[in-house]
Amino acid sequence: MVQSGCLALLSDFGLSDPYVGMLKGVIAQINLHLTVIDLTHQVPPQNVAFARFALMTAYPYLPPGTVYVAVVDPGVGSHRRAIAVAVGTNSTLPSGFLVGPDNGLFSGVLSQNPVIAAVELTNPQYWRTPEPSQTFHGRDIFAPVGAHLASGRGLSDVGRAIAPETLVSLNPPPIRVEELDDGATRITGTIQATDHFGNLITNIPAAQVLAKEWGVTVNDIEIPGQQTYSDSSPEDLLALVGSHGWVEIAVNRGNAQERLRLEEGNGVGVVGRMKDKG
Amino acid sequence: MVQSGCLALLSDFGLSDPYVGMLKGVIAQINLHLTVIDLTHQVPPQNVAFARFALMTAYPYLPPGTVYVAVVDPGVGSHRRAIAVAVGTNSTLPSGFLVGPDNGLFSGVLSQNPVIAAVELTNPQYWRTPEPSQTFHGRDIFAPVGAHLASGRGLSDVGRAIAPETLVSLNPPPIRVEELDDGATRITGTIQATDHFGNLITNIPAAQVLAKEWGVTVNDIEIPGQQTYSDSSPEDLLALVGSHGWVEIAVNRGNAQERLRLEEGNGVGVVGRMKDKG
Amino acid sequence: MVQSGCLALLSDFGLSDPYVGMLKGVIAQINLHLTVIDLTHQVPPQNVAFARFALMTAYPYLPPGTVYVAVVDPGVGSHRRAIAVAVGTNSTLPSGFLVGPDNGLFSGVLSQNPVIAAVELTNPQYWRTPEPSQTFHGRDIFAPVGAHLASGRGLSDVGRAIAPETLVSLNPPPIRVEELDDGATRITGTIQATDHFGNLITNIPAAQVLAKEWGVTVNDIEIPGQQTYSDSSPEDLLALVGSHGWVEIAVNRGNAQERLRLEEGNGVGVVGRMKDKG
Repeated sequence: MVQSGCLALLSDFGLSDPYVGMLKGVIAQINLHLTVIDLTHQVPPQNVAFARFALMTAYPYLPPGTVYVAVVDPGVGSHRRAIAVAVGTNSTLPSGFLVGPDNGLFSGVLSQNPVIAAVELTNPQYWRTPEPSQTFHGRDIFAPVGAHLASGRGLSDVGRAIAPETLVSLNPPPIRVEELDDGATRITGTIQATDHFGNLITNIPAAQVLAKEWGVTVNDIEIPGQQTYSDSSPEDLLALVGSHGWVEIAVNRGNAQERLRLEEGNGVGVVGRMKDKG
Repeated sequence: MVQSGCLALLSDFGLSDPYVGMLKGVIAQINLHLTVIDLTHQVPPQNVAFARFALMTAYPYLPPGTVYVAVVDPGVGSHRRAIAVAVGTNSTLPSGFLVGPDNGLFSGVLSQNPVIAAVELTNPQYWRTPEPSQTFHGRDIFAPVGAHLASGRGLSDVGRAIAPETLVSLNPPPIRVEELDDGATRITGTIQATDHFGNLITNIPAAQVLAKEWGVTVNDIEIPGQQTYSDSSPEDLLALVGSHGWVEIAVNRGNAQERLRLEEGNGVGVVGRMKDKG
Repeated sequence: MVQSGCLALLSDFGLSDPYVGMLKGVIAQINLHLTVIDLTHQVPPQNVAFARFALMTAYPYLPPGTVYVAVVDPGVGSHRRAIAVAVGTNSTLPSGFLVGPDNGLFSGVLSQNPVIAAVELTNPQYWRTPEPSQTFHGRDIFAPVGAHLASGRGLSDVGRAIAPETLVSLNPPPIRVEELDDGATRITGTIQATDHFGNLITNIPAAQVLAKEWGVTVNDIEIPGQQTYSDSSPEDLLALVGSHGWVEIAVNRGNAQERLRLEEGNGVGVVGRMKDKG
């Protein structure tokens, strides 16, 4: 397997304490020359669902062969497994390697990409210490295993094979698509995350609305689908295809989450009709 | 043109979502060996004026030839231009390269440094994709163009020449300097930014107060000019020359913005007299 | 002395302004190829005690020979000394180099590691400018001196020797250990810091409670000592050995600081008895 020399980090450690610095110190002790990229360390504490979305969203933009060390781990110290997964279609050049707890964190990435192989991290030779902290596996297991993988070790070095179908999943229910009597299409989906600007991100993909006239309905409020922010006025509610390729609800120069008081898991309806039929 | 291998990033993306990580992933796919420096990603959302100040302030401290990718871009998706500008006096060794939207973001740097050449980013060969997102030009245009420039591409590769005098400017009005009857000098200026500690930063340069006895007047409050924080007591208002070379208003171990309720654009007066004349 | 090519940064600058970016720009001008690790830049403003704890906590996890540039500096511009200290037991391979103000910031690291040599930073040849800002020694003195040390300069290049016993200390009083009549042990200690999750970290080391049945008493509240979070229920108060090796007080999926209204300096009692005697 070929790695990129690139290691990406995601956690809920925040940036107020030196925990992220410790991960990077442990990584630097193993290999000072890796390129380390922070995805975010401000996942809301123990919010595995947000972490799942953020990893899935960022994954396509990092170099092939990147190692992802993700630590949002409310079950640390219990019997949840520690895992590493090689992802992609080419076993000699995986698109990425996922390292962290087996709690659904990676199920978004794995809903869009096939598994090449998965292992449970059972080989303490690649840990920082054979007696890891009960509360900080990120520092003592995941970061060092990630650094060894990014430096050329193989998956079979760091643990024993497990069946990919046993990995924990946190994926939302699939969207429902209905053809209406008048030729329009109704898609029923879910808000799967809220970003830093208060934009509400659904699990309805761009392909469902491209080349259509469309709108979103939530809580009996109808919100027009737009191409861009500049098609609306300041403080207007609008729906658009966000940069990550999902339908999202926004307020021009404002905060949609505060305006609508919606959250992850709430339902969302989209109705669209082909422009040439309108 | 010679680049430094150094790329600086500034945005209003915040650190809660993985947007900055995506920029760095796109950059790493083009060149894994660039030195990437975060200036800040916590510009208040869409506050181009703050971004202008932060870039102008940081610019002198980075290596010659650094590429600056700055993305505070309320007009994304509209007809504002995407630009790159080579800055400095030596066309074979520019002091820096600016990449981002043409919305005044760079006008602070350009008020202190001459333009060598400017282009509009019209060559999709150096974008991440020929069909960029309508809402995330940072990821799809600015970061990849910046990475290519930092890796040795020239300005003429990435776009077509535009006239520097057509670039958008957001610079504040110049300060006004008057000689008073009693031999003192009065300088009338503006608060141009507020920093993380609540210090109010004016557009009055250090040279106006060095070697003088001086003070600031705002809202009929008189604030003494000091050499250093230790010349005042805790909770005292004081004025001093900040680390970036402008007169600023501070509270010793406190927050001047909260104390005075001032903001960007408010007027400030400074009166100084030469020490040897006092 | 051998350096690692690794430079760690800690400050109270926050991430809203480009101050940290300026430090990194100054460092990159001296050596573009150092590995720079952020420990944290969100030390509460001018809170030297928190910075002392964070440095002490992170120190064991970074590569031998790392240079630490730490800037929490309420006395900047006064007569406090600027210092560099080589730490460890092997003068040809120090475990680390500390660079910053002499205000107690480093006294936690120095309570756990011997000093090899200390200097006052008196040689402006290694500063950014011979006339440093009165308010930003981080940029003009500490970062450039740190970059030169990380690039191979020796301590004697950057300043003149000072006696290690003259360095300022901020260490808390030592814990008190008493044997009780019933064979148990009582340890009286202090809360020395609060982390990002609201966990209250004492100065009682893990060795005092390992292999014991134990509990914490604060404000007449008794809190059971546990192995791991999963030994308690959500919203339970618990005490455990934190990842950094100290007894700490936490709330399962909650915030102990908010629950108990305790802060740094408050007293804490631990009573433990050997399990085989229980």
